[in-house]
Formats: sequence, C-alpha cells, structure tokens
Amino acid sequence: MYRLAVLLSGRGSNFEAIQNAIESGFIKNGKVVVVISNRADARGLVLAKRRGLNALFLDPEGKSREDYDREIVKLLKANGVDFVLLAGYMRILSPYFVKSFKDRILNIHPSLLPSFRGLHAQRQAVESGVKFSGATVHFVTDRLDDGPIIVQSVVPVFSNDDEDSLSERILKTEHKIYPLAVKLLTEDRIEIKDGRVIIDWKEPEEFFITNPELGG
Amino acid sequence: MYRLAVLLSGRGSNFEAIQNAIESGFIKNGKVVVVISNRADARGLVLAKRRGLNALFLDPEGKSREDYDREIVKLLKANGVDFVLLAGYMRILSPYFVKSFKDRILNIHPSLLPSFRGLHAQRQAVESGVKFSGATVHFVTDRLDDGPIIVQSVVPVFSNDDEDSLSERILKTEHKIYPLAVKLLTEDRIEIKDGRVIIDWKEPEEFFITNPELGG
Repeated sequence: MYRLAVLLSGRGSNFEAIQNAIESGFIKNGKVVVVISNRADARGLVLAKRRGLNALFLDPEGKSREDYDREIVKLLKANGVDFVLLAGYMRILSPYFVKSFKDRILNIHPSLLPSFRGLHAQRQAVESGVKFSGATVHFVTDRLDDGPIIVQSVVPVFSNDDEDSLSERILKTEHKIYPLAVKLLTEDRIEIKDGRVIIDWKEPEEFFITNPELGG
Repeated sequence: MYRLAVLLSGRGSNFEAIQNAIESGFIKNGKVVVVISNRADARGLVLAKRRGLNALFLDPEGKSREDYDREIVKLLKANGVDFVLLAGYMRILSPYFVKSFKDRILNIHPSLLPSFRGLHAQRQAVESGVKFSGATVHFVTDRLDDGPIIVQSVVPVFSNDDEDSLSERILKTEHKIYPLAVKLLTEDRIEIKDGRVIIDWKEPEEFFITNPELGG
C-alpha cells in the first residue's frame, strides 16, 4: 500500500476526486496519509479533516522557499510518504524538494501541455483561440509545468467560452484523469523512459477512460 | 464563387482532399484556379494536371525570397485569386507575400498549435510524450505556424507510436479539417476578432465533423 501526501492551497476538488477514488476502490494500492496546505483557510483542509485524514496547515510566513520546503520534506518523510500529489498547490517547489522526491511528485495542469504553461492556463487558451484544450497530469521537475506527461484529457473550446466556462469543462476531466494517474502509479504501471512515460495499459479501453468519446 | 490558389511542394494530399471536396459539392463556393509548386517534381502538380487544373512550376533557383514571392503574387493577382491555400508548401512566405494577401492565406500544420511549431511536428509530439496531438488550420501571419486558428483536430498518441504512425493518423484528420476550413471560408462564415477566429456554426454537429467522437 503506497502512502500518499496531498499538497493544496484551495478548494481541493482534485484531492476530493482522488480520495473518492480511494474510498470507492478505483485506487486500491494507495492511501492518503497526510494533507498539507500553505493556507490556513484552504477548503481542502476542511474536507480532509471531515474525511478523518491527517490535515495540516504549515505556515510559510517568514520562511525562505527552501526552509519551508525542508520542513515539508521532513514531515513527508516522517509520514513515510511514497508519492506527493500537488492538487492546486500554489507554490513553486524548490529544487531541494523536487530532488528529495525525484520522479515521485505529480501535478495537474489545466491545459494540454506543452501549450499554456503557467498561471491562468484556461484564460490563455480562450484568448489564443484554440479549438481544443484539456488537462495534463505530469511528474514535477525543476521546470515549471514541465516533466514527463502521464495522462491528458481533451475538451472542445467554443467561440462563446470564457475563462470560467472553459475552466469548468476542463475541471470535470481533471477529476477523472488525476485519480487515473494515481491508480496507474500505485499499481506500478508507470515507467519513465527517455523522459517519456510508458504506461502498461491492461486493456485498450483503459486509455479512453478519460475520453471515452475518442474510443470509437 | 471564390477563386482559390494552392501552393505545394510535395505529394499534395491536402490539395487532393480539397479538390475532392469541391468536386463532391462539400465546398460549393470556391474553385481552384491555379496550383503552384516550387518543386518541378512535386506529385501534387501531376495530380492537378490530371484534374484539368492550371498547374505551374515556378523555379525559385537564383531568386531572393522576396523576388520569388513577388512573381507568385503577380501570378495570383493575374488569376484573380481570393484565397491562398498552403498545402505542404515548404517555403516560408516573405512579409511582402503575407501583406499582399492579409488574412487570406491558410496553412495546415500537423500539431495542436501552439504546441510543436516548425518542422517535424509529429516527431516533436512523439518525443515529448504527449498523449494527444492533432492538426491545425490557421491564417498565415509573419510568425511561423502562428496566426488565428480556424479549425483543429485531435488524435490520440500511443506509447508505441513513432513519427510515421502518428503522421498517418494526423494526416487522415488533415484531410477532413482543411476542406472544412475552406468550406467555412468560402461561405463567409469566418470572422477574425481580436486575433481569434469566430465561426458561424450552422448546427452544433458541424463543429464535430472532424472529431465526431467528441460530439457525445
């Protein structure tokens, strides 16, 4: 059973989707052992406590990025954490943190990477006029919104979309692909090879779990 | 009836798809009045002649980019061309050319722009490890593989794909979306607004013509 940590700063809807997937048995080989927020008022913390999970606010006030991250890493190691899941965590990780959990930190980004890195990815997509966008679960590296891609989802972008309507459409798919990525990870079905993720799909249909429409 | 020019350098499979769409009546308001190649041996020229079209090889040998483009623009104007369709045309257009046909030149690129601009877009996609790629029809501006996006298509990328297998999958969708873009263009259903293309979709289903799987 892999031990998972979730880092969040806000509503924690992706954390919720992952925890639901654990409780429903979709994710069988992992459990959340600690939820950490850099914001005291994160709704995600409330959700975690309500689920009976170990949920902590760690105050970054007055600490350097690395000092703060050293505290977190210490806490993660004390909890025997195997994988770290960033779920709306609004801080950039220090190289120290990334190195401490090399190839063991996941993030989700609301675009079809490598398009639209950084903040307001959905607004970037709307403003650029693309006809499709989506979400990406990827391993975290030292480079922002980069790193080997595990799974992606695709959604259409319509002429009358704004940032909110597109965000909502993408978010629904985030709640499917992040649990899927965690499932694959905790079933040891993910391999990083030449900087790319190779997934051991058990059946062709699985690939399309997040985009059943593409399954033909 | 809009007068179309096609510029190509190779096999001309996208030209063929467009010409088929004209002959079948899918594109009703446009006809190809001239096909120009910068390569004497382009298969596309042979195809065009076989279809009874005005097909010309224009030799770039010993001419500057702009001098060559001035010749082409002259030829296009002499033929009363309204829109220029780049279909595997392996030359970068001079600013003079782009300005002469501002917002009237289309190109197709084998990626989900803005990802993977430039050459070997399919190889870039495979090497980057993305799980979806596709094709993009866009207006041509001074910037390479940039400009307002008209339509896009999406295809999955599998772990065992190589450049060839992905290219083939994307190409099939190119042959759907380029004719669709030309149809929309020649029916005056495309508007550029704040750098984005707004399309007057006649029915919701039309949006999904290229990606019926996404239509639900």
